[in-house]
Amino acid sequence: MPGFFLVFEGGDGAGKTTQLTALRQALADTGREIVVTREPGGTPVGQAIRDVLLHGEHVAPRAEALLFAADRAHHVATVVRPALERDAIVLQDRYLDSSIAYQGAGRALEADDVRGLSLWGTQGLLPDLTVLLDVPAGTGRERRGEVHDRLEREADDFHGRVREHFLALAAAEPQRYLVLDATRAADDLAKDIEAAVRERLT
Amino acid sequence: MPGFFLVFEGGDGAGKTTQLTALRQALADTGREIVVTREPGGTPVGQAIRDVLLHGEHVAPRAEALLFAADRAHHVATVVRPALERDAIVLQDRYLDSSIAYQGAGRALEADDVRGLSLWGTQGLLPDLTVLLDVPAGTGRERRGEVHDRLEREADDFHGRVREHFLALAAAEPQRYLVLDATRAADDLAKDIEAAVRERLT
Repeated sequence: MPGFFLVFEGGDGAGKTTQLTALRQALADTGREIVVTREPGGTPVGQAIRDVLLHGEHVAPRAEALLFAADRAHHVATVVRPALERDAIVLQDRYLDSSIAYQGAGRALEADDVRGLSLWGTQGLLPDLTVLLDVPAGTGRERRGEVHDRLEREADDFHGRVREHFLALAAAEPQRYLVLDATRAADDLAKDIEAAVRERLT
Repeated sequence: MPGFFLVFEGGDGAGKTTQLTALRQALADTGREIVVTREPGGTPVGQAIRDVLLHGEHVAPRAEALLFAADRAHHVATVVRPALERDAIVLQDRYLDSSIAYQGAGRALEADDVRGLSLWGTQGLLPDLTVLLDVPAGTGRERRGEVHDRLEREADDFHGRVREHFLALAAAEPQRYLVLDATRAADDLAKDIEAAVRERLT
C-alpha cells in the first residue's frame, strides 16, 4: 500500500485537533497531497449513520457497534484507501482504537469483537503510525475539583478504563505507536510528532 | 427460549405477505400473542438505517452488510427477543437467509461472512421454522416473455443465484425448513403451512 496513514487517538480534550492542524502545516513543504479526515462521520453516509446514533431512540449495543463499523467501512473504502492509493498522507482524527477503547470501556461488548468487526469492514487496514495523546489519570479530576457524587466517580472510572485500553493497544505494538503525555506544551508535542513522522516518511 | 419464531423467506412476489396474513388469522384460535414483523426496517432505528441505504449516495458493500446487520441486531434485541420471552408467536417477513441469499448472490461478499455478522448481532438467534416460498426457475422468465437484452439476462442470473442460496440453506438444515412451491394455489399453501406450524406448537 503506498501513501502514509497516520491516526491521532486519545480522550476528548487531549489536543488531537490542535496537533493534527499543526502537523498538516508542518508537512506542507513535502509537496505531497495531505488528506485530513475523521471518524465517525467522515462521509455523507457516515453523517447519516451518526444521525441514527445520536437523534433516534436508544440503539441496542451490538447494533451500535455494527453502525460504527459500517461508518468506518464506508469511510475507508471511499476516502482513506483511494487517498493512500494516490500516495497521499492521510491524517485522521480517531480510528479503530477509539472504537475498542470506548465500546470496550462501556463493558457491554468484548474488545476483540469490536476489533473484528472493524477489521472485516476495512479489509484489515491499519495505520502506519498512531499518535496517542495520553491524558494521565487524575488530570481530569484536578481540573474538575473534588469528586462530589456517584456520577462523577463513574465518569472518572469510565475515562480511566478508556485510557487503559488505549495504553494496552499501544503497548502491544510499540512500533506502530507514538505515545505522548498530552499535558506537555503543545509546541513541544508538535515537534516530537513532526520528527516521528518525517523519520517514517523518508 | 420460550415462544415460537417463524420466518417467511423467498423472492419478491413469492407470496410471503399473503401467507403471513393467512397464518396470523389461522392461529388466532390458539389464544397466544402473535407478533407480526419484518426485516429490514422493523423498528424506527431500522427505518432510519433503511433511509441511509436507500436515499444516500452509493454505500460500499461491506458498509451495506454492516448496516443490514445493525438493523437486524436492533430489531432482534428490541422486538423479537422480548416477544419470544413473553412466549409470543413471532411471524416475520425475511431474516438471516435473505441477507445471505441476496448479498451472496451479489458476489461482492462471502455468504459465511454475512452469516457471521448477523449471528454476532443477534447473539445467535435462529428461527424455530423457516417457510421458504420457492419460485421455480423459469417462472419469472415465462411471465416476462422472451429475454431481450443483457440486463434482463443478468436479472435472471441474479434471481437464479438467490434461489440457489435459499435452497442450499434449506437443504443443509431440513428440520428447520418447510420448502413449498410458491406457484401452487395460495389456499393450498396456507393449509400446508398451518399444519406444519400446529405440529410444532403442540
